[in-house]
Amino acid sequence: MSDSVKKVVLAYSGGLDTSVILKWLQSTYNCEVVTFTADLGQGEELEPARHKAELMGVKQIFIDDLREEFVKDFVAPMMRSNALYEGQYLLGTSIARPLIAKRQIEIAKQVGADAVSHGATGKGNDQVRFELGYYALAPDIRIIAPWREWDLTSREALIAFAEAHQIPIPRDKRGESPFSTDANLLHTSSEGKVLEDPWEEVPDYVYSRTDNPETAPDVPEYITIDFERGDPVAVNGEGLSPATLLKKLNDLGKLHGIGRLDLVENRFVGMKSRGMYETPGGTIWHAAHRGIESITLDRGAAHLKDELAVRYAEMIYNGFWFAPEREMLQAAIDYTQAKVTGTVRLKLYKGSVNVVGRKSPYSLYSPKIVTFEDDAGAYDQRDAKGFIKLNALRLRLLGQRDRG
Amino acid sequence: MSDSVKKVVLAYSGGLDTSVILKWLQSTYNCEVVTFTADLGQGEELEPARHKAELMGVKQIFIDDLREEFVKDFVAPMMRSNALYEGQYLLGTSIARPLIAKRQIEIAKQVGADAVSHGATGKGNDQVRFELGYYALAPDIRIIAPWREWDLTSREALIAFAEAHQIPIPRDKRGESPFSTDANLLHTSSEGKVLEDPWEEVPDYVYSRTDNPETAPDVPEYITIDFERGDPVAVNGEGLSPATLLKKLNDLGKLHGIGRLDLVENRFVGMKSRGMYETPGGTIWHAAHRGIESITLDRGAAHLKDELAVRYAEMIYNGFWFAPEREMLQAAIDYTQAKVTGTVRLKLYKGSVNVVGRKSPYSLYSPKIVTFEDDAGAYDQRDAKGFIKLNALRLRLLGQRDRG
Amino acid sequence: MSDSVKKVVLAYSGGLDTSVILKWLQSTYNCEVVTFTADLGQGEELEPARHKAELMGVKQIFIDDLREEFVKDFVAPMMRSNALYEGQYLLGTSIARPLIAKRQIEIAKQVGADAVSHGATGKGNDQVRFELGYYALAPDIRIIAPWREWDLTSREALIAFAEAHQIPIPRDKRGESPFSTDANLLHTSSEGKVLEDPWEEVPDYVYSRTDNPETAPDVPEYITIDFERGDPVAVNGEGLSPATLLKKLNDLGKLHGIGRLDLVENRFVGMKSRGMYETPGGTIWHAAHRGIESITLDRGAAHLKDELAVRYAEMIYNGFWFAPEREMLQAAIDYTQAKVTGTVRLKLYKGSVNVVGRKSPYSLYSPKIVTFEDDAGAYDQRDAKGFIKLNALRLRLLGQRDRG
Amino acid sequence: MSDSVKKVVLAYSGGLDTSVILKWLQSTYNCEVVTFTADLGQGEELEPARHKAELMGVKQIFIDDLREEFVKDFVAPMMRSNALYEGQYLLGTSIARPLIAKRQIEIAKQVGADAVSHGATGKGNDQVRFELGYYALAPDIRIIAPWREWDLTSREALIAFAEAHQIPIPRDKRGESPFSTDANLLHTSSEGKVLEDPWEEVPDYVYSRTDNPETAPDVPEYITIDFERGDPVAVNGEGLSPATLLKKLNDLGKLHGIGRLDLVENRFVGMKSRGMYETPGGTIWHAAHRGIESITLDRGAAHLKDELAVRYAEMIYNGFWFAPEREMLQAAIDYTQAKVTGTVRLKLYKGSVNVVGRKSPYSLYSPKIVTFEDDAGAYDQRDAKGFIKLNALRLRLLGQRDRG
Repeated sequence: MSDSVKKVVLAYSGGLDTSVILKWLQSTYNCEVVTFTADLGQGEELEPARHKAELMGVKQIFIDDLREEFVKDFVAPMMRSNALYEGQYLLGTSIARPLIAKRQIEIAKQVGADAVSHGATGKGNDQVRFELGYYALAPDIRIIAPWREWDLTSREALIAFAEAHQIPIPRDKRGESPFSTDANLLHTSSEGKVLEDPWEEVPDYVYSRTDNPETAPDVPEYITIDFERGDPVAVNGEGLSPATLLKKLNDLGKLHGIGRLDLVENRFVGMKSRGMYETPGGTIWHAAHRGIESITLDRGAAHLKDELAVRYAEMIYNGFWFAPEREMLQAAIDYTQAKVTGTVRLKLYKGSVNVVGRKSPYSLYSPKIVTFEDDAGAYDQRDAKGFIKLNALRLRLLGQRDRG
Repeated sequence: MSDSVKKVVLAYSGGLDTSVILKWLQSTYNCEVVTFTADLGQGEELEPARHKAELMGVKQIFIDDLREEFVKDFVAPMMRSNALYEGQYLLGTSIARPLIAKRQIEIAKQVGADAVSHGATGKGNDQVRFELGYYALAPDIRIIAPWREWDLTSREALIAFAEAHQIPIPRDKRGESPFSTDANLLHTSSEGKVLEDPWEEVPDYVYSRTDNPETAPDVPEYITIDFERGDPVAVNGEGLSPATLLKKLNDLGKLHGIGRLDLVENRFVGMKSRGMYETPGGTIWHAAHRGIESITLDRGAAHLKDELAVRYAEMIYNGFWFAPEREMLQAAIDYTQAKVTGTVRLKLYKGSVNVVGRKSPYSLYSPKIVTFEDDAGAYDQRDAKGFIKLNALRLRLLGQRDRG
Repeated sequence: MSDSVKKVVLAYSGGLDTSVILKWLQSTYNCEVVTFTADLGQGEELEPARHKAELMGVKQIFIDDLREEFVKDFVAPMMRSNALYEGQYLLGTSIARPLIAKRQIEIAKQVGADAVSHGATGKGNDQVRFELGYYALAPDIRIIAPWREWDLTSREALIAFAEAHQIPIPRDKRGESPFSTDANLLHTSSEGKVLEDPWEEVPDYVYSRTDNPETAPDVPEYITIDFERGDPVAVNGEGLSPATLLKKLNDLGKLHGIGRLDLVENRFVGMKSRGMYETPGGTIWHAAHRGIESITLDRGAAHLKDELAVRYAEMIYNGFWFAPEREMLQAAIDYTQAKVTGTVRLKLYKGSVNVVGRKSPYSLYSPKIVTFEDDAGAYDQRDAKGFIKLNALRLRLLGQRDRG
Repeated sequence: MSDSVKKVVLAYSGGLDTSVILKWLQSTYNCEVVTFTADLGQGEELEPARHKAELMGVKQIFIDDLREEFVKDFVAPMMRSNALYEGQYLLGTSIARPLIAKRQIEIAKQVGADAVSHGATGKGNDQVRFELGYYALAPDIRIIAPWREWDLTSREALIAFAEAHQIPIPRDKRGESPFSTDANLLHTSSEGKVLEDPWEEVPDYVYSRTDNPETAPDVPEYITIDFERGDPVAVNGEGLSPATLLKKLNDLGKLHGIGRLDLVENRFVGMKSRGMYETPGGTIWHAAHRGIESITLDRGAAHLKDELAVRYAEMIYNGFWFAPEREMLQAAIDYTQAKVTGTVRLKLYKGSVNVVGRKSPYSLYSPKIVTFEDDAGAYDQRDAKGFIKLNALRLRLLGQRDRG
């Protein structure tokens, strides 16, 4: 790998940090920088990023609306698994990284770039997720990770560099920013600063995507979500595209204060970190998906899926989206969703989402069999005796040996 | 196995069904019946059970307060695993059955009984849980499961039998009872009747252990729970015995409407059923335990635990408490809890419980390493490059082969 | 389920036991019996079965050559998983049962039968495998399992029944047969009688499919097997159909005494049994498949596959071929085989089969990277430092806490 | 971490490479070197290592016989799991590394060293295993890995360095050594050079620990191994210490050509490598342990153990011996071995080891239950009907939905 770089595609947000990186790449590597800004539903204007890039002399500027692809090809497959990292986290940041990496590599190939760059730090998971994606899709790509290379190791140094290079500095970045955030259509995450003491409650001002449950409506709201083959396709009977649907669920979740999570988690790089996540629509989606699976999925598939989901979540968290083990689990998971079709009714209230009803043309729930009342011979209770006796046989042999 | 039975120990609640069973056993098998009534914190007076048994001529009556043993030796080991059946159910009924079976077998040995009997139906999980316990602990015991044997297959027949044998019938049992319940210190479950349509919301009158979140206090309550070696030992700084502590958490959970679950689940006997569970204190305990583990448990142990917990939950649900595979998982789980000690702070509010703080003398969370600010060399960001490159190596080789 | 049966499809081998069953079904149920005899490569003439069935008045006789379907759709998918039950058994009996069940149900539908029947005993696994297949494919079928129903519980009674009904009795069945066997193209199994003492070595006369290694050729034989997408397609360069290929491997394995297994295993019905298996060709296939995977499969997929194979093997052993959990694992396994293409060279010698060479156009083995010699920069050894340091980080934090 | 090193403990074999490292450490770091040479049963004289170290001015020389500790505390716990890496490899190198690391850290603490060093290269697994061990046991230790640091990147450079520093060079090291080896009481491994083409058969001269099966005795040998609580304690009735017992099995295995393995495996650092392993005694031990477990271990424990063993093997291979996840699995595994006591009879013949008999005072094998003959009511075959019907229930509901 030579040290000379001709053209680098930078994942560019338009913010201070990646603007500094843009300039640093130009001056350090004396190379052309191509910027790529993705609209993943983070809720920010992207045209200012174009303007800033132009000001810094960038000639090839890519600003792509990836929202539908994000929800359809990344969020939805993941939600089919019911994945929760460490039992709780809906992987909102993790699942966005592979898409950014994929598009960045496509652009690199299109513009003939020999390198890619990103603004993730050397302590976090995102560098891993970006770079595993880059390497999987372009094994010989050159990767530049400025935070691991440069000497701008303090915020003061960064701001001094920005000032020296006429990079505009937002007012709120002058002082120490209180925490760092990442946002996309699925979630907003916050880390660092005021959150670094895991004994201290997250201050209310950190939340940006959800209303405080305490000020949320005093009256519950009921909604329905229709699923087809494992994916939500309509809310309250209205058919919506993947991204539009998630947006709708986000609005509902925000209103009712749903999807806040305060978590100390284990990063892939070996340390624990404390983060705060807001996943309003994803939290509703997750609950609803479990609800529709509960009547349409067989026990054998459901339990195996639950076991595999722990590993699957870990793979996505660690950045192994483009890895064979993730893809083979996806094949298994997707196989199970053929009949995961039907409607779930949910109640939203002051931070909680609860499934209160589910129905499906493919329901495996049989009132005739389960009833306490006379079932007209649908189930022969005497079968249970043999079932128990053979399940018990090995325990009895053990008991005779060990407890005799 | 001969058909003649001399003495049978019956798990006796004092209610209509087990009273009918008591009489039916006496008349069908012409045998002596010994009753065993356990106080597992179900919240009912037990002395009436003694009186009824005496009226029916029972000479040996066992009424045991098992609450502390229940929480200490059954609930607590299970909660150490974070087990959730099918991602949601805290196993409140499942975990009580092995203790009842164990004590029933002890009594059978003490009184020289050759059989045991229970009142669980032939469609449910409880018959399996009871009988796997009996067989594991007394491989040659005779088991009588009246619901699988007798011809009292309708409620009318049952009531007619009761009337014919002077068994008092509670007023509310005359008509069809709207649903069936099970209760102990950990939870109350409800099944059947008005719950049998999974599309219909659970009516509010079904809930008995938790207040409606909508009428719960408008102001959040903060509490702390102290853990030692994986088990809670104090609430708000006050040291409590296992059962007393769970009782305290139940009171808190009830007040704030915490721990309601409406679930369609897969029974071990092969059918889906819809149940409603209220686990107020257990829900708080579960959240708090995850909270204390999050700072004291290493990632390797935590992730493996999460994978094993799916199987562990299935074992308990299916009735395999006294099975080597459950015991070996318990050994692994317990091993991890040596340093799961510290304090968790939680916020209770209208149906939600959220961890808002956690601290421990054994915390593995290192602010020095995780900080975005200068860490004085605690972590060398350049190490991440090698970490990523070697993790990526196999993906690059794959990419060269498959995407070249 | 009424007791009246009109027409039953019997899995009929033509042997004494199923001939007795045929007659017993006719006389007990006064129903028409349709016989189905499958050629799975068991190596017996099937026309005698037709003749016998005709003699007993059977009008619809099905004799089907299922050998290619057996190997292509059942053996091959299983071998892709490297499944070994309890670490050793190649599942030769287990994998044949679902195919028999499937064809039997097809025939039942074709001839309008309302029942099916088989000759498996009430203690074994085969009854479970047959019947789970029947029920999965025809949920309302009536199943007649004579061994669980009749009173012919001793061999004497069986032979008396045969004599009374003019069923011819082979000379060697007069006395106690020394052991019972099952055979198909994949293997022969033997159980019972002289094998029932697990301390006693299996007598040489029990083996029928493999020569004794001690009398096998003194000179090793080298062969090659070509794989395409996970399945063997040629031996020594000669392209062969699935069944023909397995036959060829069986011949080679027999000659060199390969594939004998003496095992005490755990049956699904709860008991341990001791069996002897001969799987000559399957043992070679299994070794070769691992060999070709070793250079074409990525580590992530390979390791996950190894974990899943334990469960997959259990599913097949227990009879859950037609279950969603088996099918979803199959989807995952098949996904991994897209590039499992290439050639394996093996050495056969006196009971052993060893892979001695493997090559593939899709090999992931890179001599350039792995070499101890100068690799011209293909791998930067300094990356290992960062890799180790970040993998060690959590262990160091633990060490500081626990060993300080 | 400062660059100045005062005293370093080197894992020293006395061979050319570690002698060069010794000198290189002295000259590069200008520090005191303490040598540590372990007798793990590699079969070499260790006193020459002492002499060489003295010649190079080493003042503190540790030569420790760790054979009994190696077998008792590392090999035996691992063998209890039946671990096989990638289905085949008995982990002979992997399991020795943690012990060396442990002792090296003990010595470092004893002599007040601030660093440790080893001779493993930057491409292999051993660097990871050593260093994860060091870091786990001494989180702040300084690690020097010369192969990742120095510029002696070719064999010529190494030999030139040796000549320049009067380090004696064995005759066979002058030319390119044909392959590299590692040996201990459990196994010998060979890698590199003539083995680098995975299509080429391993030349016979590479094998050093086992006789060629083709020249092994023409007559099988029968042996017995006694186990107590999962560990072998006697061969042919003669009680032996752990290391002596393994030595005895090695002698038997060598004679009969047992334990050769030619494998392409996946290294933790991301590449595939081809190795040849000889594990004569370990292969016998492994087979025997499965044999004794087959009659003494319950199915539930056995199957779960098989699943966990895949992960356990990976942990050991990757170097995570001193990690909580390995320790928690060990707790589970050890729990299962309480009754794994009894005797196994094995047949050794020309490369094969086969269990031919097993017996135990704790056998769970019940001839009374398993027999095809009349079992006097020990097992009621009619129970199988209910067992099957309830296992089939969910498949029938699925069939009604999906195949109707």
